[in-house]
Amino acid sequence: MKMKYLLTLLMSITILSFSHAKGKVSIDRVEPAFWWAGMVNPELQVLVHGENINDLDPSIAYEGVTLEQVIKVENPNYLFLNLKLSETVEPGKFPIQFKRKGKVVFTYDYELKARAKNSANRKGFSNEDVMYLITPDRFANAIPENDHVEGMYEDTDRSDNGKRHGGDLQGIIDNLDYLKGLGFTAIWICPVLESNQVDYSYHGYAITDYYKVDARYGSNEDYVRLVDEAKKRGIKIIMDQVENHAGLNHWWTKDLPTKDWYHSADKAVKPTTNHNRSSLADPYTTPSEKRAFSDGWFVDRMPDLNQSNPLMSKYLIQNSIWWVEYAGLGGIRQDTFSYPDPEFMSDWSRSIMEEYPNFNIVGEEWTSNPALIARWQVGKVNTNGYKCYMPSMMDFPNQEAFVKSLNVSPDESWQDSFGAAHGMLANDFLYVDPYNLVTFMDNHDMARIYDQVNQNYDLYQMAMVYLYTLRGIPQVYYGTEITLSYPENPGDHGGLRIDMPGGWEGDKVNAFTGEGLNEQQKNAQNLIKKLNQYRTKTTALQTGKLVHYYPKNETYVMFRFDEKTKVMTIFNKNADKTELKLDRFNETLKGAKSATDILTGKKYDLSSGVISIEGTSALMLELK
Amino acid sequence: MKMKYLLTLLMSITILSFSHAKGKVSIDRVEPAFWWAGMVNPELQVLVHGENINDLDPSIAYEGVTLEQVIKVENPNYLFLNLKLSETVEPGKFPIQFKRKGKVVFTYDYELKARAKNSANRKGFSNEDVMYLITPDRFANAIPENDHVEGMYEDTDRSDNGKRHGGDLQGIIDNLDYLKGLGFTAIWICPVLESNQVDYSYHGYAITDYYKVDARYGSNEDYVRLVDEAKKRGIKIIMDQVENHAGLNHWWTKDLPTKDWYHSADKAVKPTTNHNRSSLADPYTTPSEKRAFSDGWFVDRMPDLNQSNPLMSKYLIQNSIWWVEYAGLGGIRQDTFSYPDPEFMSDWSRSIMEEYPNFNIVGEEWTSNPALIARWQVGKVNTNGYKCYMPSMMDFPNQEAFVKSLNVSPDESWQDSFGAAHGMLANDFLYVDPYNLVTFMDNHDMARIYDQVNQNYDLYQMAMVYLYTLRGIPQVYYGTEITLSYPENPGDHGGLRIDMPGGWEGDKVNAFTGEGLNEQQKNAQNLIKKLNQYRTKTTALQTGKLVHYYPKNETYVMFRFDEKTKVMTIFNKNADKTELKLDRFNETLKGAKSATDILTGKKYDLSSGVISIEGTSALMLELK
Repeated sequence: MKMKYLLTLLMSITILSFSHAKGKVSIDRVEPAFWWAGMVNPELQVLVHGENINDLDPSIAYEGVTLEQVIKVENPNYLFLNLKLSETVEPGKFPIQFKRKGKVVFTYDYELKARAKNSANRKGFSNEDVMYLITPDRFANAIPENDHVEGMYEDTDRSDNGKRHGGDLQGIIDNLDYLKGLGFTAIWICPVLESNQVDYSYHGYAITDYYKVDARYGSNEDYVRLVDEAKKRGIKIIMDQVENHAGLNHWWTKDLPTKDWYHSADKAVKPTTNHNRSSLADPYTTPSEKRAFSDGWFVDRMPDLNQSNPLMSKYLIQNSIWWVEYAGLGGIRQDTFSYPDPEFMSDWSRSIMEEYPNFNIVGEEWTSNPALIARWQVGKVNTNGYKCYMPSMMDFPNQEAFVKSLNVSPDESWQDSFGAAHGMLANDFLYVDPYNLVTFMDNHDMARIYDQVNQNYDLYQMAMVYLYTLRGIPQVYYGTEITLSYPENPGDHGGLRIDMPGGWEGDKVNAFTGEGLNEQQKNAQNLIKKLNQYRTKTTALQTGKLVHYYPKNETYVMFRFDEKTKVMTIFNKNADKTELKLDRFNETLKGAKSATDILTGKKYDLSSGVISIEGTSALMLELK
Repeated sequence: MKMKYLLTLLMSITILSFSHAKGKVSIDRVEPAFWWAGMVNPELQVLVHGENINDLDPSIAYEGVTLEQVIKVENPNYLFLNLKLSETVEPGKFPIQFKRKGKVVFTYDYELKARAKNSANRKGFSNEDVMYLITPDRFANAIPENDHVEGMYEDTDRSDNGKRHGGDLQGIIDNLDYLKGLGFTAIWICPVLESNQVDYSYHGYAITDYYKVDARYGSNEDYVRLVDEAKKRGIKIIMDQVENHAGLNHWWTKDLPTKDWYHSADKAVKPTTNHNRSSLADPYTTPSEKRAFSDGWFVDRMPDLNQSNPLMSKYLIQNSIWWVEYAGLGGIRQDTFSYPDPEFMSDWSRSIMEEYPNFNIVGEEWTSNPALIARWQVGKVNTNGYKCYMPSMMDFPNQEAFVKSLNVSPDESWQDSFGAAHGMLANDFLYVDPYNLVTFMDNHDMARIYDQVNQNYDLYQMAMVYLYTLRGIPQVYYGTEITLSYPENPGDHGGLRIDMPGGWEGDKVNAFTGEGLNEQQKNAQNLIKKLNQYRTKTTALQTGKLVHYYPKNETYVMFRFDEKTKVMTIFNKNADKTELKLDRFNETLKGAKSATDILTGKKYDLSSGVISIEGTSALMLELK
């Protein structure tokens, strides 16, 4: 049984194992298992793992490939081979020979594949896209057979929100037409790499093998198939990657290459990160405080990777690039962006963007302080000289501020309800490129937007109209298109990641087919569909200029426009129908005479100088 | 009566008035009434006001003074004379002759005074200082005779918190020894220029004559005497200036030089500013929105000055410099800094700092968003290219954040109570020079700090210890040294500016003499005195490096140190006595073996690696 599981793990690598005079020698891992000819960066570092492997001398004879250095570490079971690939190296296989005293003991056939056409110039997700976020364990279970994989620790148990529920890659593939039908053009999928942890493995952020899709989701080949099937439908796949930490059951844990491979590997009690996210920018913090932030463990089941070790750094960067190239990714989402070594995150983002200059990566820096988020974007001049190369970051501050505006009572503040939203958006002067931020109203770590607004559908609709009017790249969490909700305990992680109705055989309600959806759920689905369709055909909402006006009398007005289209969005938090005078917006209206409601098709005559808007509602108007 | 009042108004200017063929001609104002030889800026613009004055031709014959231009405006009662003063011009008086058809009608003797020694190099207030803020109407009434000034609109009525109470400059002069005794080295006094408004004139921010101290406070000469007396005691005087608006009863109002002298002068209903303070930085706002912010009236009794009119701009800048030079100021505090035309505020701050390179000016930008405040500081590179030249700004964000930390219950947040304070201070990376910000716990526009912490003396003491540990220039509001309080309605403007006990004859409690103060008030006074004395002798607290540690277990630790002294301040919000382990601070403690409590003199042995700190308290320790 154990052997069968081990074979599953090892993919295409043949285990070579010999007994000889000096003891057992074997190769069980070569990572990356293959690479590509014609990458921008000519350097490739190959990790070789096997019992006492450092007792052998590797050599390579292939035109255009030079074995520049063989790095041995304190653990004899590792070798790191530094290869240099010439610009003209041809794709093909070549043997890596491992010799003892001049005699070949093993041969590993390494492959340099040919790159896919236009791979380097691939366009990453952008503000032309609308993004859908999936927690794969909770989306759709197409293959119940892979719910239990022999030898893997955690069971599937749908009755427990903290356990695996069985969703898989095939479940996503099967529902690509549904997502295409809704108009989404990009999917961010929470991590699907192996997470063979003893519990809470369903979230995926505790990776135990960086080169292998978790068997309970499918295989690496399934992942590539998903990307290909999505591509056919005009949908990009965005991989969720995690550089900060691994899962404790990563195969490294039992055989660390170096003592410093994980932070605090030698300590019985692992120090937890202090979560002091401001420490990296803080002029008053100490080196020990920064270390406590960067080097502390996120939780005790997730070893904190030491990216200041250059072997670890190279391993992670290559792994990210490997997945882009191997799977044909349309983007990367990077978890807990500020927690790893910041110099590493600089190298990591620069290295990927050097390989793929038109690519996109979005990082998670969960704070309501835009000054901290802005620090990571490429081109930002930081006070302390720090430079990073991230094209995009998640826009947490505007999410928080708009929801605050929706929920606040006008009596609670000296300013209009929308003051929080307006004031936060005004902070965009801090960003090099706010139009490339990823915007959202909820995600896999916070209460569902429908719960955030206390199950008030009118406020939910306002939130969605805001999301699609705002600059950036809108992202919708799975199920939010049917007002998925967990009012029992809105903030509970298991609860906010409840199963997508219809993803499991026997589900009475099916979001994918529409079966069993109530009127509100259908309305919400229709709302998202219309917003997606309008946004993806309207460049004004993608790259068009944004203008907003100071909130007044509980109304807030935004415009998006380019040479082709002008969109005016009005938010009204008054309980009753409100007459909005238009003269204040004349310089942006520029004589527009009529308007069409994007959602209902209703026409408005603007010549009266007034627009009527229902209480607690949003109007998205195309002006003529 | 009327005539007597007019004479009072006109200071040293003789009214010249003749009847002649073409109608009445007169001169009733020349502003500035005199100037100085040897200023950096060779240009001087003199406003001359008088009936039909523009009918006359002015001329000047004095070596080193050139009358470069005579500007006439639509109102015939004004002339603006552009003078150029040579570098070598000698102090002295010279006649400005006003001629009609070559014949001298009037002569005005203009004086170029000699500058005080070292005037240009005067040092403004700095972080070597501790600042005391006085609302002069509410501090001390030394001269009851000036409570009512014949011909001025508003009465004195101590029974009404919205009316004048009678405090005056002599009251401040009389109590300079008290302030010196407490250890203050700078006094910011709310505006004392004439505010002859019909009501609410006591606050002083509605100025009706920019060149004249309000007679109910005293005279210009009294103001100079106050500055001189303060100087003798090592105390700098900081003048509160207002560029954004005047009082409606300013003499301009009845005879505006130009139609655009005030914004919306021609409108029956004056548009109020939208208070959209973020609009100047906001990349998404419109020109009309920015105008609505800058050009709207603050309130309807305070005309919004049009600083984009170059005559107005020059008038205001010269006025500010005139007061520095005339009175010997140690600094300026500028009201509502973001509300005037931002280009003007750039010129204004640059012009003053060019005259006095070592001077200091602090601006009020009341927001909890440090990114908006940081924009004004000299050297800040702003996204939109805007440049200002302010050395200092008021630090509202840390005031708000620390009070929030004091008042928050640990149950309300995922982080420690001190998280708000720590996180806000970390934002200092946004500032070019955070060490030059003016810090405070309360001022004349917000509830008394003792009321902000709900009359909890322990929290009050923590707030004060924080203020004196923080980088910047600490400012204490008058009466805060005796926990002045207005619990009936803490936010009420009249209430938070209640009379200083002892400032009025017959007061039973006297803060100045100590008579009638209760134990808590005496303790508070003693606290402030000790903090002042320690701060002003300890360079570590002035310019020393600041280090703070992430709050943990409801404690927050800050250090200030230089080569001479190391200070460690510990805040404890636990209700009970807490043992604080010191090992976490080793890299900053650097082997310190003992500590002395600044406030009590108590000695601590640090060799045990633990310090005991009382519940809800702060310890300021000097380490050895």
